[in-house]
Amino acid sequence: MSKATTAECESSKIDMKLINPFVDATVNVLKTMAGVDPTPQPPRVKTTHEAYGDITAIIGMAGENVKGSFAVSFTEPCILKIMSNMLGENIESLSGEVSDGVGEITNIITGGAKAQLAEEGYVIGMAIPTVISGKSHNVEHVTDQPVIVVPFETEAGPFFIEVSLIV
Amino acid sequence: MSKATTAECESSKIDMKLINPFVDATVNVLKTMAGVDPTPQPPRVKTTHEAYGDITAIIGMAGENVKGSFAVSFTEPCILKIMSNMLGENIESLSGEVSDGVGEITNIITGGAKAQLAEEGYVIGMAIPTVISGKSHNVEHVTDQPVIVVPFETEAGPFFIEVSLIV
Repeated sequence: MSKATTAECESSKIDMKLINPFVDATVNVLKTMAGVDPTPQPPRVKTTHEAYGDITAIIGMAGENVKGSFAVSFTEPCILKIMSNMLGENIESLSGEVSDGVGEITNIITGGAKAQLAEEGYVIGMAIPTVISGKSHNVEHVTDQPVIVVPFETEAGPFFIEVSLIV
Repeated sequence: MSKATTAECESSKIDMKLINPFVDATVNVLKTMAGVDPTPQPPRVKTTHEAYGDITAIIGMAGENVKGSFAVSFTEPCILKIMSNMLGENIESLSGEVSDGVGEITNIITGGAKAQLAEEGYVIGMAIPTVISGKSHNVEHVTDQPVIVVPFETEAGPFFIEVSLIV
């Protein structure tokens, strides 16, 4: 499946039309930039504060009619494969180069989603990304609204995106 | 000292007039909300990717003429004292309640700085805060611009703010 449907996320009050631009952009960016073809899994509402990966990029969004945050959290094997593909060399550890790459990937995904959201009438401004690394770090989006998690499978292991948008 | 001067941060290309609103708001918010009187130390340019505390809140900012990110990173003893004061009960561990409190403090500091920045002609929109917890997590703001760190001393130990703004 390539799209989340409202039914699959019916416990959420967030319209999936706000989430799907991020799903689409994630697939497109990783295909184009890293030759990786991630398969989105059914979205769910985040229920705990834990992050799902070993390195997480977060970018804030603020616009006239929408605000929120977007996070991409990669497991270590998955991001090492992605970065190795992108850089054309074997990347073996979570260096500063990987942090910069994760930030850049997140920037480009958000830019793609921003363009799609603009077509829906939602105009967002993008903050600069922040990258968190460290085993067992927890990530909490401070909002009363549900945070939507979409897991992705890749040949090198899973990664996750999280979207929290307030309209 | 209560204000950072351009001279103290002369290696930075960032005008300290963008940083001082965050310093002022941090002092005011912690005094008002938690009865804690933090003393700002000289600002410096962040040179590593490490976080300085055990729990960090990050908020993105995006406006017409400025964008960036703001982070507040508390050591555990410091935030436990602040939260105990705020809630009027003895808080002994970094629970979800503490995460929510750190997010809320960061929201209110950013709101205060936003008001001051507006007087300088910088109009920012605020994203929603994200809170990271976990020992030894690293925080990197993905930007070519210098990130300014301002340490604060309190009776319960240090905390740090980080400002990265692109004009």
